[in-house]
Amino acid sequence: MNTLNPLTLNRLMGYYHYIDRHIGRDSDQTISSATLSKLLNIDDTQIRKDLAVIGVKGQPHVGFSSREIVGAIRGVLGFDLSRPAVVVGAGRLGGALASFKDFHDYGLRTAAIFDNNPQKIGQTIGDQVVQPMDRLETVIRDSQAQLGILTVPAHAAQQVADRLVQAGLTALWNFAPTRIAAPDHVSVRHEHLAAGLAELLYHLKNPLSTDAAT
Amino acid sequence: MNTLNPLTLNRLMGYYHYIDRHIGRDSDQTISSATLSKLLNIDDTQIRKDLAVIGVKGQPHVGFSSREIVGAIRGVLGFDLSRPAVVVGAGRLGGALASFKDFHDYGLRTAAIFDNNPQKIGQTIGDQVVQPMDRLETVIRDSQAQLGILTVPAHAAQQVADRLVQAGLTALWNFAPTRIAAPDHVSVRHEHLAAGLAELLYHLKNPLSTDAAT
Repeated sequence: MNTLNPLTLNRLMGYYHYIDRHIGRDSDQTISSATLSKLLNIDDTQIRKDLAVIGVKGQPHVGFSSREIVGAIRGVLGFDLSRPAVVVGAGRLGGALASFKDFHDYGLRTAAIFDNNPQKIGQTIGDQVVQPMDRLETVIRDSQAQLGILTVPAHAAQQVADRLVQAGLTALWNFAPTRIAAPDHVSVRHEHLAAGLAELLYHLKNPLSTDAAT
Repeated sequence: MNTLNPLTLNRLMGYYHYIDRHIGRDSDQTISSATLSKLLNIDDTQIRKDLAVIGVKGQPHVGFSSREIVGAIRGVLGFDLSRPAVVVGAGRLGGALASFKDFHDYGLRTAAIFDNNPQKIGQTIGDQVVQPMDRLETVIRDSQAQLGILTVPAHAAQQVADRLVQAGLTALWNFAPTRIAAPDHVSVRHEHLAAGLAELLYHLKNPLSTDAAT
């Protein structure tokens, strides 16, 4: 299989969520690319191409098996695995992510959550006790964690990222409001919540309906 | 001023966070576009253009006033206002966003948080008591809220969005794992957390260093 790019992955998640929600993951229905196209507002040809790439072949004049689509996407993304992830930063966002029940559904489990604030260490979030930062390397090694989720302040992000990479993680999900650098073998996803918010705030000040006149 | 596009806004947030963090919002230093360019990995000419658009003029061979940059960005984005926002969905993510202390810093305040789960209604999150959904329209009207933050399940998102728009909101920040439609005068920002996660999970299964060979 060729490497799937982010846009393809995004569309695949769209197909997955649509079927999961409206058809059911375990039931099986025939669905045509034309139907998916209309529902998700994605070009018909693009949908057939995406499904072909993950090995799902439709039947001419019949369509695709919803169960086959779901199974292929789960397989490609490893949703049936149970991969340990660690969360660094036990603030509200970190807590929300650490106890995110959908994690399990995406083949992840929270192996540990860390913080350097003595008032947070020892607290329970979901089924995890917040651990001190000096346990980071040991826990990552013992749990064989692969994914690190950063919900630390911007000024701490790079240093934490460096430690996570040094400890062997190969994927970082960064919610700190800053970009972090990592070696080429590490995949990093930045969630720019503040940037998204800035867009909305700008439009609140400059209403969309009058954009043309400003 | 021309309408600023999302990429420009994103870069402006980058300048803002850099100065806020490393120079301080209230101190004043001279900073050159060349320095910012090196620090943020953004083209020098682009930086000067962005700053000119928001009315910040540098002095040749001297640079820009950090205080002037910060002030111009805060002005353009309305960070000194106090705009009411409502959060729909009092799950962990909703709670995290509702009590996000940086909101205040972006000129927002949480006016109310809503849920339809009787077990959540009446609970306190930050300084807000979770309210039932049938209070939505009244609270939006009375608080003159402008921004709605959706942290509801996918299947409820469109219906909630419709109610928020009907009640007069003109900006929606959507964390539900689905796209929502809204009239043209409403600005919508989708945060695709699941899509971001999918990217990372895919790379965990298909390590980046061997992409070329897959």
